[in-house]
Parts: sequence; C-alpha cells; structure tokens
Amino acid sequence: MTEIPQSHTDLLDANFATLATISRDGTPHQTEIWFLHEDGDIKISLNSSRAKTRHLMARPQCSLMILDLENPYRYLDVRGRARIEPDDDYVFADRVGAKYSSDLRQHDGPGERRVVVTIEPSSVFAVDMSG
Amino acid sequence: MTEIPQSHTDLLDANFATLATISRDGTPHQTEIWFLHEDGDIKISLNSSRAKTRHLMARPQCSLMILDLENPYRYLDVRGRARIEPDDDYVFADRVGAKYSSDLRQHDGPGERRVVVTIEPSSVFAVDMSG
Repeated sequence: MTEIPQSHTDLLDANFATLATISRDGTPHQTEIWFLHEDGDIKISLNSSRAKTRHLMARPQCSLMILDLENPYRYLDVRGRARIEPDDDYVFADRVGAKYSSDLRQHDGPGERRVVVTIEPSSVFAVDMSG
Repeated sequence: MTEIPQSHTDLLDANFATLATISRDGTPHQTEIWFLHEDGDIKISLNSSRAKTRHLMARPQCSLMILDLENPYRYLDVRGRARIEPDDDYVFADRVGAKYSSDLRQHDGPGERRVVVTIEPSSVFAVDMSG
C-alpha cells in the first residue's frame, strides 16, 4: 500500500512536487517544492522559519504530490507523516542543491535553520487518467 | 486577502488544479481536478461517491492550487472552505463539460450523483519564484 507502482517511479526523478500541510486553523495549504528521492525515501530540505515547516512541526500529517507536468492526468500522491530532523550543517541541503544547481544557504536569512523532512508514507495513490 | 492579484489571474483559465482535502484520519490528500472559473468563483463538479467529496462533506476546509505547468515556480493557492450544492440535473456539470469537451455523465455510475463545489476563499497565496 506504500509501494510506488512501476508505472510511476519515473516521477521520483521529477524536479517539482506539491506539499500539502495543515495550518493551525485546520485549512490545508499547498506549496510547490524541491525534493530529493534518496535511499528509497522522499525528502525535502526546509527552512525552519517557513509556515509549512511550522505546520509540520505541529501536525505531521502531510501529502506530497508529484504531477507529470507534461501529462497532468498522471500523478502520484504520497500520503503520510513528516519526520523532521535538524540539518544545521547543510549536509542534506547541499545534496538537494546539487540536484538543482543551487546553494540553499542563499535562501536562508541570519539565524534561520535548515531541517530535513522525510515523508513516512501511510498510503500511495498513483493515478493515470490519460489514454 | 482573498483577492487574486492581477499577476496570477491568467491561471483561472487553466485546465488543471490540485485539490487538497483532509481525510477522516486527518491526513491531507491531493487530487488533480478540472475546474471552472465562473462569476468570480472557482467551482468544481464532483461525483458524490468520491473520497474527496466525502472528505469535504465531513470537513469543508480545503485548498485549490493552480500551478503554471510551463513555469512551476509560479502558482496560486486558494485556501478556504467548500460549499457543496446538488447538481442532480447536471446543469453545472454540463458547463464544465463544455470547457473540456467531455460529457461528465459518462464519469458516473448508476445511482451516483453530481454536486457543485464552490471554493469560499479565506486566503489567497500567489507565488512567483521565477526570474
């Protein structure tokens, strides 16, 4: 049930995903994010001051959707919980930066911190409504 | 705060949006949907038997994100509540069908019903991280 079907594994190499978190008042929020598929996990590098990070700290339930941008009838929604760990030394952030040719330090202000968010899936929803 | 900025109004004519609902166990789910921008509202035609429809009936908080598929650094996330009304005669469903050249009756099984979901925004988040 948390296995990603062969038909959709290519999406794990995509550049963009949509993260849904739940805000303090219970309303879902969606933001577009970078991610890294690593050792079988989907992981995100977040700045700890961002709203989505605070949402996940308060309420770890989330969903990460990877849409086939060239065929939006095809996508993967990974639903579960976020495990949050410190990344003060940017060890993980630098691996994300290598994927996107970007230095994530430049996204952070003074005093802000990096965390690694690993999605712990409880279910996977793979859709292909095309053809 | 619920006004859509001029920079993003073109997205209201897009073909695809991502709907985030909250499942019974509190986990967000994301699905890709058709929508119609009509009389200033964002509206969706749903089959009442679908999980997302049942989620919204139990918990109207939702978010509808419209991603610029050609520039995924640019998007609009409309956050708020879903107002659900019957569309037994497919009056609204047919207007959606006209946008997509599709007959929505063909998506429904015997005994299933159509509803109109209107997003009542509490906030709008317009992003452009490109350039």
